[in-house]
Amino acid sequence: MPYELHYWPTIQGRGEFVRLALEAADADYVDVARGSDGEGQGVAAMMHFIESPEVERPPFAPPFLVDGKVIVGQTAAILLYLGPRLGLVGKSEMQRLWTHQLQLTIADVVDEAHDTHHPIATGLYYEDQKPAAMQRAREFRLARVPRFLGWFESVLARNPSGSAHLVGGRLSYADLSLFQLVDGLLYAFPKATRRALKKTPLVSSLHDSVPQHKRLAAYLASERRIAFSEEGIFRRYPELDG
Amino acid sequence: MPYELHYWPTIQGRGEFVRLALEAADADYVDVARGSDGEGQGVAAMMHFIESPEVERPPFAPPFLVDGKVIVGQTAAILLYLGPRLGLVGKSEMQRLWTHQLQLTIADVVDEAHDTHHPIATGLYYEDQKPAAMQRAREFRLARVPRFLGWFESVLARNPSGSAHLVGGRLSYADLSLFQLVDGLLYAFPKATRRALKKTPLVSSLHDSVPQHKRLAAYLASERRIAFSEEGIFRRYPELDG
Repeated sequence: MPYELHYWPTIQGRGEFVRLALEAADADYVDVARGSDGEGQGVAAMMHFIESPEVERPPFAPPFLVDGKVIVGQTAAILLYLGPRLGLVGKSEMQRLWTHQLQLTIADVVDEAHDTHHPIATGLYYEDQKPAAMQRAREFRLARVPRFLGWFESVLARNPSGSAHLVGGRLSYADLSLFQLVDGLLYAFPKATRRALKKTPLVSSLHDSVPQHKRLAAYLASERRIAFSEEGIFRRYPELDG
Repeated sequence: MPYELHYWPTIQGRGEFVRLALEAADADYVDVARGSDGEGQGVAAMMHFIESPEVERPPFAPPFLVDGKVIVGQTAAILLYLGPRLGLVGKSEMQRLWTHQLQLTIADVVDEAHDTHHPIATGLYYEDQKPAAMQRAREFRLARVPRFLGWFESVLARNPSGSAHLVGGRLSYADLSLFQLVDGLLYAFPKATRRALKKTPLVSSLHDSVPQHKRLAAYLASERRIAFSEEGIFRRYPELDG
């Protein structure tokens, strides 16, 4: 039975971290909300799990994964669950925990990237919170992005198995997620991110090498890869790039 | 060898979620940064793990746990690691994953609570971002707190083992963390939180029953429990409570 990924159908968003793992592992999966209502898919099928009182363990929000009777919400928890099943994490408890920690820190940056354009309320338009967005984006560009990327640079530099991967000597879901994070930052804040990457050459190399992975390259070139846009988490508003 | 918890010594903050688990399980632990420099403790001992290039797997920020050679950062990952060791989570993979999901959602609320007083930049004073804080707190009080507490209410209501606990029929670290979240919200936003709790009686009951746990009651009455304050994550600024 294929994995069911449930996520908003028109954006990369947080669901993209799960898509990348499923695609890199060539897993059998259905991107449910992108399917048609007629086939029992679409957004309504996704909302069922969130809204139906029949669901014993309802996800708080998309993305979530359905694997038979198992429902897992929270991006990092989904990857914690999928990692060993897809061969995208090491075998020891300590490797798995460290990979998960990296993912949780990536999730923190993603939250902060979101809040650069929505510092006040998700329910308001960007245009209605622009002055606060300008200030928050400045802090994010100047202080947070360099600090986070600098930390990932240290992690790569100190990996005893080599600096091509975050954990061990093979591709893990954390590598895929760091690729996606940097890709999103380059989309939203091209000037600031390029500046930061000059000081983090190992992070920059990882961002270059991950999309050369054969199955990932095929995915990124396919129609399954949704383009970045100003509906997603990483938005290109030039005024926020300084 | 005792567990070492590393966290800022004068606030509850994110470290409190770990302290509650260690205390409820009567674990042998040292709250390192609250110790004295003379005994090799204090904030300097904590910063060593973050700043020393010798540390192969450096935490990004406090809190983190040191258990022999193992270093675990990220509050939710620390509890993922400690849960089975302290007997504060069920035995099956699915129970552990669900408990972790609940913790990750609590962490999301904690981040949002922090951003009510620091919507622009952690590096700026509250007073310098007060207009944005007023707006963000309004959204948090009116939309986010009811939505999050309502979700936890559903989780309690749907627990087949009974509504006294979030997962299964025994105390888990998720119960401790939900107690701490509600306690923090009641400190920071007493009016709005009491209003929300009227609609979530199961959450309210859990907040009342958890501190009756014998070891936890002893901890909460001890000097080890730091008081809430306007230096922590949950801050009482009456103007933010509407």
